[in-house]
Amino acid sequence: MAITTDTRKLAEDAVARCRKLATFSEDRGALRRTFLSPPMRDCHREIAGWMKHLGMEVRVDAAGNLRGSYAAQQSVAPRLLLGSHLDTVPNAGAYDGVLGVAIAVSLLEGLDGRRLPFAIEVAGFSEEEGVRFGVPFIGSRALVGRLDEELLEIPDASGITVRKAIEDFDLNPSEIPQAHVNSDYFGFVEFHIEQGPVLERLGQPLAAVESIAGQSRLQVTFHGHSNHAGTTPMNLRYDALAGAAEWITAVEHLAKNLGGVVATVGKIDARPGATNVIAGETRMTLDVRHTSDSVRIQAVKDLVEQAEVIAKRRGLRTHWLPLLEQAAVPMDSFLVAEIENAIRRTECGVHRMASGAGHDAMILAEKIPAAMIFLRTPGGISHDPEESVAIEDVEKAIQCGSYLLGQLASSPLIKERMCRA
Amino acid sequence: MAITTDTRKLAEDAVARCRKLATFSEDRGALRRTFLSPPMRDCHREIAGWMKHLGMEVRVDAAGNLRGSYAAQQSVAPRLLLGSHLDTVPNAGAYDGVLGVAIAVSLLEGLDGRRLPFAIEVAGFSEEEGVRFGVPFIGSRALVGRLDEELLEIPDASGITVRKAIEDFDLNPSEIPQAHVNSDYFGFVEFHIEQGPVLERLGQPLAAVESIAGQSRLQVTFHGHSNHAGTTPMNLRYDALAGAAEWITAVEHLAKNLGGVVATVGKIDARPGATNVIAGETRMTLDVRHTSDSVRIQAVKDLVEQAEVIAKRRGLRTHWLPLLEQAAVPMDSFLVAEIENAIRRTECGVHRMASGAGHDAMILAEKIPAAMIFLRTPGGISHDPEESVAIEDVEKAIQCGSYLLGQLASSPLIKERMCRA
Repeated sequence: MAITTDTRKLAEDAVARCRKLATFSEDRGALRRTFLSPPMRDCHREIAGWMKHLGMEVRVDAAGNLRGSYAAQQSVAPRLLLGSHLDTVPNAGAYDGVLGVAIAVSLLEGLDGRRLPFAIEVAGFSEEEGVRFGVPFIGSRALVGRLDEELLEIPDASGITVRKAIEDFDLNPSEIPQAHVNSDYFGFVEFHIEQGPVLERLGQPLAAVESIAGQSRLQVTFHGHSNHAGTTPMNLRYDALAGAAEWITAVEHLAKNLGGVVATVGKIDARPGATNVIAGETRMTLDVRHTSDSVRIQAVKDLVEQAEVIAKRRGLRTHWLPLLEQAAVPMDSFLVAEIENAIRRTECGVHRMASGAGHDAMILAEKIPAAMIFLRTPGGISHDPEESVAIEDVEKAIQCGSYLLGQLASSPLIKERMCRA
Repeated sequence: MAITTDTRKLAEDAVARCRKLATFSEDRGALRRTFLSPPMRDCHREIAGWMKHLGMEVRVDAAGNLRGSYAAQQSVAPRLLLGSHLDTVPNAGAYDGVLGVAIAVSLLEGLDGRRLPFAIEVAGFSEEEGVRFGVPFIGSRALVGRLDEELLEIPDASGITVRKAIEDFDLNPSEIPQAHVNSDYFGFVEFHIEQGPVLERLGQPLAAVESIAGQSRLQVTFHGHSNHAGTTPMNLRYDALAGAAEWITAVEHLAKNLGGVVATVGKIDARPGATNVIAGETRMTLDVRHTSDSVRIQAVKDLVEQAEVIAKRRGLRTHWLPLLEQAAVPMDSFLVAEIENAIRRTECGVHRMASGAGHDAMILAEKIPAAMIFLRTPGGISHDPEESVAIEDVEKAIQCGSYLLGQLASSPLIKERMCRA
């Protein structure tokens, strides 16, 4: 299938649509749009308008996901899911999430009414960031059957539960099972900004995401003795902050020397926290990520051991608290290869990479083949009003998506699915 | 002059008196006694009672210092000042400050009514810790003419100024000049707990303090870029906390390798301070002390340079804010030598040391020869209800003080002063 449409115009429309959606906010002068908040209704109405213009069937499922369906050539057909999330962090940028929905709509627009041998569903997930309830991916969880009773009872800061929020949005929590993806769905493809500096450094607009990195998060506390900074000689100190500092340096050193690992100490609290008092206690967080679970788990093990060695030498004690342990999620190898091929056809450099952040594709991958396409993020800046994308890059993404749809339409794999359907 | 009295009994009394004074507190169940607070009045009444029993003349000067005078053999005589401070930190121990007053009273008690060729004045300073007004040494400043108009106008947390607090205690700020020490005073000797671990490690009860260390305090901020902990590879980070950690390790390394320097980073704040976000900014304090001002100033210069080198290599920026710059104060060499001699006569090991903390002796040294005697502090624990002293050590301090009084009474220096008087 050739690209027949003016992809530049489609890219401009996609960006303009993101900027329009950014006006639907809970906050005045800044963008915040959390799970089923009032501006989410405006967001749904706006996107549903674009979808209906393309002849799509639109519904909001019981988890608050907007789902538009673009019919196939034949009534019984396999189904490709495209999309991303519609919620935002506080003080957000205009592209995180929504760009994936806008690009999907532009791709359908680019079909100029043509039908493919598979249906295309565009989903705008209701919740990915975890802002309102402290739990991320509520929207996409519903599609894989993981928006369960326990999750429904989690309250937000005002005591409103997920269930109540759903009801307040005039939806019926008992219909959540109808949000599930079934065996018709043969794949999920998510366009998303990279939210990091890698593509910019490489000078490339697009990447095929081959996996979502696994994560370990821990809290560690170094315990020493709080003492007077003036009267305690250096050799008689049990300085919990000095020990912590030595370990933070070791964390960075290990990660720099272990390909692909990222390790971060982002949070630190030294007590009592006075200029003239040696810290008796220092609490930190550790965040370690890698595409290989075994590499990540070994890295964490090494860092825990290094902390113990440092603490022992200094007469300190450590205390550990696991916070999160999440396995890596590989993307579907068939889809990744097709995406690479489509990127090659746009005459961009081809780059495969891991996503260091979690995405809805990670959740969908539990039930259906899933893959992602990253767009270069200027300055790596995201979760910030300065977040941006280049029109040229969005155009390349739309071209890539068009090629991908064509490849899938002629793929033997899809044809086989059609015969089964 | 031989020690004729039961010094064990005098030591027991001194400790019992400290414990009695610890019952005069602003807080129920914990000791806090700040500048001219109501329990300070009880404290004055109690100590004045002990003093009057020894035939001393007692007054409270206009800065709230309790001052008891023990007459000399002759009416016109030089005057030795003994004492320490009566105020405490919140949640204080029973010995910081008041032990110096209690030992002074015990020393006079030990004279059994005998008179010396010099008068002895025992001062209980009204304010040393700086708790109420954020400014330390208000009591002893009055003796050297530094309780000035500017200081009188400083308000406490309730808006009550030093001046108003003095008036509320039925004292007259205009009489502060009458609190000054004049040329009759030939020396000040302060007994004080070490508040550190040095004497305990040496296994010695007493030390002659030969100087009060100078202090530099600074605030430094490392500025980097806040970024996503998952999407930012190690080599593309500008991690302000990793830079700070490297520098904290350098601070410790420099101090450990430069005899007598203590350097402390006691306070740290990394922002935004989230598990999954690279710190874009890390603010710390630096506290550096040494008896030699030039050594201290060079150490601070080196540490600032090291921070700049670390920041430059990492693509970070630093910002510095000076907080405090205080020169070292040498103690009077004649008094220090006499104290050493007196310690030797108690058959304790002799140790000269610097005080890492500030004390009233540092203020008095501006006008009169001053020196200090440190008592071993179990566990180095101070500013804590667990603060303690051993009776045996207090007894050694009283013996040392008795020898010192005898030495001074027969010193040619004092005889010369008597002839001049």
